Amino acid sequence: MVLDDNWYTEASDDLGLGFSLRIKSKLHEEQSAYQTIAVYETETFGRLLTIDGLVMLTDRDNFVYHEMMTHPALFAHGAAKNVVIIGGGDCGTLREVLKHDSVERATQIEIDERVTRIAEDYFPALCESNDDPRATLAFEDGVAWMNNAPDGSVDLIIIDSTDPIGPAEGLFNEAFYKQCHRVLGNGGLLVQQSESPLVHSELIGEMHGGLRAAGFADTQLLSFPQPSYPTGWWSATLAARDTRTLYAPQGDLGFQTFYYTPAIHNAAFAQPAFMARILAD
Amino acid sequence: MVLDDNWYTEASDDLGLGFSLRIKSKLHEEQSAYQTIAVYETETFGRLLTIDGLVMLTDRDNFVYHEMMTHPALFAHGAAKNVVIIGGGDCGTLREVLKHDSVERATQIEIDERVTRIAEDYFPALCESNDDPRATLAFEDGVAWMNNAPDGSVDLIIIDSTDPIGPAEGLFNEAFYKQCHRVLGNGGLLVQQSESPLVHSELIGEMHGGLRAAGFADTQLLSFPQPSYPTGWWSATLAARDTRTLYAPQGDLGFQTFYYTPAIHNAAFAQPAFMARILAD
Repeated sequence: MVLDDNWYTEASDDLGLGFSLRIKSKLHEEQSAYQTIAVYETETFGRLLTIDGLVMLTDRDNFVYHEMMTHPALFAHGAAKNVVIIGGGDCGTLREVLKHDSVERATQIEIDERVTRIAEDYFPALCESNDDPRATLAFEDGVAWMNNAPDGSVDLIIIDSTDPIGPAEGLFNEAFYKQCHRVLGNGGLLVQQSESPLVHSELIGEMHGGLRAAGFADTQLLSFPQPSYPTGWWSATLAARDTRTLYAPQGDLGFQTFYYTPAIHNAAFAQPAFMARILAD
Repeated sequence: MVLDDNWYTEASDDLGLGFSLRIKSKLHEEQSAYQTIAVYETETFGRLLTIDGLVMLTDRDNFVYHEMMTHPALFAHGAAKNVVIIGGGDCGTLREVLKHDSVERATQIEIDERVTRIAEDYFPALCESNDDPRATLAFEDGVAWMNNAPDGSVDLIIIDSTDPIGPAEGLFNEAFYKQCHRVLGNGGLLVQQSESPLVHSELIGEMHGGLRAAGFADTQLLSFPQPSYPTGWWSATLAARDTRTLYAPQGDLGFQTFYYTPAIHNAAFAQPAFMARILAD
């Protein structure tokens, strides 16, 4: 069947894949200094945020992504006080980070202020912790910010970016990873969204290789479902500055989640057989 | 964007979701006694099998589904000799079952022989174990077969059906589960595909309730990615006739897999927080 204009479709000739959501209306569209940002009201997934025609998030399923970009790394670290988010302009990652009492300071470095302003207007739940006294919202280039940050000053770097094309391209290479490694303190961790295990396994292998070449002692892949991203199967890469034990949560988390649990924490590190073979190379 | 006729699209107004694969050509289409069966050559996912316009499988991602419909249940049972597959006409589940040396007999009960004949023609890899001397291919109604099967004669029942509408509707209710419970021997297990945790959580809750009402002592939900099914996030429900220990694989599986591993076995039983709350009710 051919879908009419009542559907929003993200399709990639390259991947040969398309994903569609039935929409009620387009709520907003603008060309920022960096990209085209749009918001739709969908029939069944709540609101949808797109950048340059690619799905960034929906109300219905962003909980998986935001919880998995934050809680595994924060619990694995065990005592992260200073957290930096590169990208993450919708503020959903910031909100999850601030659920951790150990965190004393969380800085979101988003290149495009318009993403955050639109999130404040159309996704207020994601922005509900923006006024937390521990939070700083900076609108700068993440690569430049990292180049200027002092040695050993950050406990956890979360790279919550768009795909490795366009504005986010500079966040997926060894030069940037070297800066991150320098900026992390003892026992520091980095977590970065790393696309789909099924169709981006080559990129994932390159990211792990780049992180290790930049000096990271260990890299792990975390997998989770993300229905509104291509293939519905997504991943994050967790890299440890030093050889160290990664902690897992025990008992009550201390806050409510919708996807993440202690059992999910451990489960997310299990590698599909094909991925274990790729990562072993 | 609106996709043209170079794309195959499965869309559901009900779910408000669409999934598309770019196609090179339609290889086959026929109306069987039960349904419309079609085969496409896609650009990036190999061949695609559809029934009544719904994706059944693709070459590229069926390995996850077939491995997760079989190996967790077979290893959890520990000594299944007589296995019955209800549905599964593409023979991919049968192939995985026969990788287990413990299995002495595997019977596939598919209502529509044309599904199997088309799989033999267009998906020969899935059918490569059809001539195994332990395999029987029967083309009958699964509900009638179960009603006529002797008490306690089967160790593992795998219900590898289409969605709970159309021909498969009778496979998702308490009356059928009661017959399955009667037909299972001591320590017997049942596993059934149970749709998407994100958008079918109500159905999953009803299935678990129905299985317990039919006498099953325990039910567990297994989750896994399945990119070509709605949301890309799928599940199977594992039900135990009796209160018993479910085994997990140790060390080498004894055969090659692409998704399933011992770590994935354990990971698949981890429940997302929202699903744990639903299943606790």
